[in-house]
Amino acid sequence: MESSNNDWIEPGVVSCDVVVVGAGLAGLTAARELKSRSPELKVVVLEAKDRVGGRTQTVDLKAANGSTDQWDLGGQWVGNSQKHILKLIQELGIETYPQFSQGTKWLQAGKFEVRPYSTQKWSLSYLRHYSLFEAFDAARTLWKLEELVKTVDVEDVFNTPNARIFDSLSVEEWLMQNSRTRLVQDSLEIATKSIYGIPTKRLSFLYYLYYAKCAGSFENLIEVEKNGAQRTKVKGGTEQISKRLASVLASDELYLNTAVTVVDTSDPQSALVHTMDTSQMNEAQETPNNEKARFKCRRLILAIPPNQCGHLRWLPGLPFQKEQLFNGAPAGNLFKCIVTYERAFWREKGFSGEVASTGWTEFPGETLPLVSCFDATSADGNPALVAFLHNAWTDRPLEERRSAVLRDLARFLGEEAADYVDYRDKDWHQEPFNGGCPVSCVPPGNMEAFSHIREPADLVHFSGTETAICWAGYMSGAIESGLRAAHEVLFHLDHSQVEHRHLKGSIYGVDGAFPQLPDHSYKQTVERSPWPRRILLYSAVALGIYLYSRKYTLSHTARAVRPLERAMIKWWSGYYWP
Amino acid sequence: MESSNNDWIEPGVVSCDVVVVGAGLAGLTAARELKSRSPELKVVVLEAKDRVGGRTQTVDLKAANGSTDQWDLGGQWVGNSQKHILKLIQELGIETYPQFSQGTKWLQAGKFEVRPYSTQKWSLSYLRHYSLFEAFDAARTLWKLEELVKTVDVEDVFNTPNARIFDSLSVEEWLMQNSRTRLVQDSLEIATKSIYGIPTKRLSFLYYLYYAKCAGSFENLIEVEKNGAQRTKVKGGTEQISKRLASVLASDELYLNTAVTVVDTSDPQSALVHTMDTSQMNEAQETPNNEKARFKCRRLILAIPPNQCGHLRWLPGLPFQKEQLFNGAPAGNLFKCIVTYERAFWREKGFSGEVASTGWTEFPGETLPLVSCFDATSADGNPALVAFLHNAWTDRPLEERRSAVLRDLARFLGEEAADYVDYRDKDWHQEPFNGGCPVSCVPPGNMEAFSHIREPADLVHFSGTETAICWAGYMSGAIESGLRAAHEVLFHLDHSQVEHRHLKGSIYGVDGAFPQLPDHSYKQTVERSPWPRRILLYSAVALGIYLYSRKYTLSHTARAVRPLERAMIKWWSGYYWP
Repeated sequence: MESSNNDWIEPGVVSCDVVVVGAGLAGLTAARELKSRSPELKVVVLEAKDRVGGRTQTVDLKAANGSTDQWDLGGQWVGNSQKHILKLIQELGIETYPQFSQGTKWLQAGKFEVRPYSTQKWSLSYLRHYSLFEAFDAARTLWKLEELVKTVDVEDVFNTPNARIFDSLSVEEWLMQNSRTRLVQDSLEIATKSIYGIPTKRLSFLYYLYYAKCAGSFENLIEVEKNGAQRTKVKGGTEQISKRLASVLASDELYLNTAVTVVDTSDPQSALVHTMDTSQMNEAQETPNNEKARFKCRRLILAIPPNQCGHLRWLPGLPFQKEQLFNGAPAGNLFKCIVTYERAFWREKGFSGEVASTGWTEFPGETLPLVSCFDATSADGNPALVAFLHNAWTDRPLEERRSAVLRDLARFLGEEAADYVDYRDKDWHQEPFNGGCPVSCVPPGNMEAFSHIREPADLVHFSGTETAICWAGYMSGAIESGLRAAHEVLFHLDHSQVEHRHLKGSIYGVDGAFPQLPDHSYKQTVERSPWPRRILLYSAVALGIYLYSRKYTLSHTARAVRPLERAMIKWWSGYYWP
Repeated sequence: MESSNNDWIEPGVVSCDVVVVGAGLAGLTAARELKSRSPELKVVVLEAKDRVGGRTQTVDLKAANGSTDQWDLGGQWVGNSQKHILKLIQELGIETYPQFSQGTKWLQAGKFEVRPYSTQKWSLSYLRHYSLFEAFDAARTLWKLEELVKTVDVEDVFNTPNARIFDSLSVEEWLMQNSRTRLVQDSLEIATKSIYGIPTKRLSFLYYLYYAKCAGSFENLIEVEKNGAQRTKVKGGTEQISKRLASVLASDELYLNTAVTVVDTSDPQSALVHTMDTSQMNEAQETPNNEKARFKCRRLILAIPPNQCGHLRWLPGLPFQKEQLFNGAPAGNLFKCIVTYERAFWREKGFSGEVASTGWTEFPGETLPLVSCFDATSADGNPALVAFLHNAWTDRPLEERRSAVLRDLARFLGEEAADYVDYRDKDWHQEPFNGGCPVSCVPPGNMEAFSHIREPADLVHFSGTETAICWAGYMSGAIESGLRAAHEVLFHLDHSQVEHRHLKGSIYGVDGAFPQLPDHSYKQTVERSPWPRRILLYSAVALGIYLYSRKYTLSHTARAVRPLERAMIKWWSGYYWP
């Protein structure tokens, strides 16, 4: 293998083989993989924040009996089918414990009233709170969604049947067209806000299907049991995973408080990365704008969210589709809070602690804070609840937020909710160099740009959980993407070390050729002449009308059916046709 | 009035009353208005590029007979109802001349064949190229669109009927639901790409209607005649407007090559703006990252596109809706080219030079470059064509682009097109500190954030053509928005000078209270109990079925109609229901 080329060295420029931007799970995994596969490579990790861990963060909160315990404000759950994170946790010797989910769950969707439900035993006593129409519609819509999820091709998303049509639909629009009850539409709105942190109207339906397929099925995204994403928690919090990964890096390998400002790839042999010192950013009123060292490298891995890639200055400009992706990928905002208690009063009542709510009340314009809530009792048994809040509450003062959350918890779980020990919430969109949590999403129409997400641009490789093909958006996806980016770099710098199974979905998968995008041309919609079909249709309709009018004349029944048809369209689709 | 407070002065900090960021039409108009209304105010304009003019740019090209003439690579047209720009042009003593549009126009939409059309005299000889169904559908869809445009409330967009539903629809989806022919869908795709520089699938339908309403009607956006946006051109190019506006600013009032990096509003009395020197950015391989002076001001006007606002670092973080707007407003990309000729050969043939094309060919995946084309003969009579190109061509080499454009022009206007004098194109998404042209658009679902676009955040006021309520996206809108921002600032700093007509659409319009957003709550959809309606419907349907089956038994006609209904849905909506 080639070694780092030393005649690059210039004053103020740190020369190395690979620069990894972002010390989250993806970046640290990439650095670790590169170092273990090819120890001669000089790898440098740059991180804009003052800590490693990216979108995972563990904090201390006051807990029951005057003790202190750890809770996660970022990614916290691990699913049974998330093999990448499970393998890493095992390697690092970290323990896990199951998410508690026994008992009655509460739902406020479809109407203002709070209704109980259970996913374990759907007893008749719960079912009586729902109409048969609601139950049937829920089963039918979820089945339809799962059937569509199955058809998605994650490696080449435009290979999915009807990909173009699904891309121009928002999820809300699909739900309006395909579900019939407010309950189902509300429940999926809640699920979407809890999974992506963004309302259904802002998501491409194709992206929605893609994301679920990356997790195996839509059920896996929402479920606590089986292969659900919320199955297991990490003892001591998830930030320690990144900390342990970072601990093996030397001080000249990990630069904290170092934000990348400019990525200069005008030299075809090496990329130059300009950085800025952000060490006093969190505390100080005055932001230092000091230039720090520049980094010259042979390959660059960007392990930061797509929307943050868009905030960098690129020299020369990015390829068109990359630019459209980065500037059109708004971050969701999972606004998370933890409330600790002396007693797990909800368990005593036979509740699981799970709550899902639209937040709507009888007063138009009012939104209660809770979207969803889960039991968050720690591994040491300290009782707590974790909730996701509606983004309408992001700009309110802490005091107001806290009292509203406690009032809203009391609505579902009982008055004991007011008697808390500690409260902490985190608005991820306020976190600098992050922009939101859990993922940068794809709005309707932008999946063509998204299909280029794993494609390198010159010497730059892209990592981060958004680029994964298995559990994208989760910690497991971050690790998978880090491994992929590392092996992409090894492909160029130390070919013998490449393991092809890690290159799945990359352009290096098949002979180095990126999967051909399907044509978005004309052909796709006018494959056959529509005329035979049209002539048949028109003749049949004309014949039908003729026979109908001849044989029966226009009866009372027919006259009655006309306005009904119109009313049905209005009611089913919700449209008032202009 | 209060004067600039001098005890602010710190080393390296320029103190002033108002900082305007962006020396495009909006920013320069704001600065001019502030200076003329209240000469004691110290106003500073910061511009990241090395020139004024923003999204207008005039270049010299070789023209007929060895001469040289000016053409516009950015905004170039002025419509008759664009009163703000017309007034300014008159004040500055700049001449205008009409856009040439006489003769046959060419269209490749609906099928691969090129078909002639004319908007002046829709003669039978043109009509024979179109089916009656196509003509009917075009008239019907455009009428429907215009009717919907009329219902939009530009000052409070969620006051529009069905606003929430239209927001979650992409324009493509609306077209699929409401038009019946490929011709109409293709033509509106072409129009959208020429107006917004973005495909229909990426635009919120509510935004589409809003944008058209800002221009008066959809027809005004696409039309050359009447009040159309393409009616008039500016002699000598449009960049001179900005240059003349800038010429009255002193050297310590206009800072070129000064990019804002951080906006710090943590002090409630003054905003601090950090800047970066970009003077060598265009030429040099090495980007200097030098810190320039900081600017402290009492009020700040951001006259840059929304997506560029998102690239600044905000201390403290932005309000949630602003952040969602700035990070979810991808810029369109009108990829414009000018070709000059010795002779206006198209006029000699009786063509207007107008061309509209899907760019699709018989070969799937191939896209020809032209979207649309117009006569661009200069005021001095130097023949030229101006064309907008498909974004699929942005990353191709210049040589390849040029020859493809010439070949494509020849397809519509004849072989003489190959014999050009000069060619120049500009890919606005590659322009630093711009991100695209003409506007930052709103994807489906993000209009709630967009409805906050004119709302100030602390001491920061927002200007730029996207924020206008009359001809948003055009030069006229930029000027209107500059005036509004200037008067918003005067509202605080020199109240006696405020003219309320300029504050239309701002929060200062009515008693300083921002128009209340309509509630997005539950109430909107379940105002009445659906049960009476449902019972009526079910009974009527049951009764109908009963009477129908009793009286006629299930006839051959009824049996025949069932599969036809299904086929019709498939054919009308284009959906293959899963």
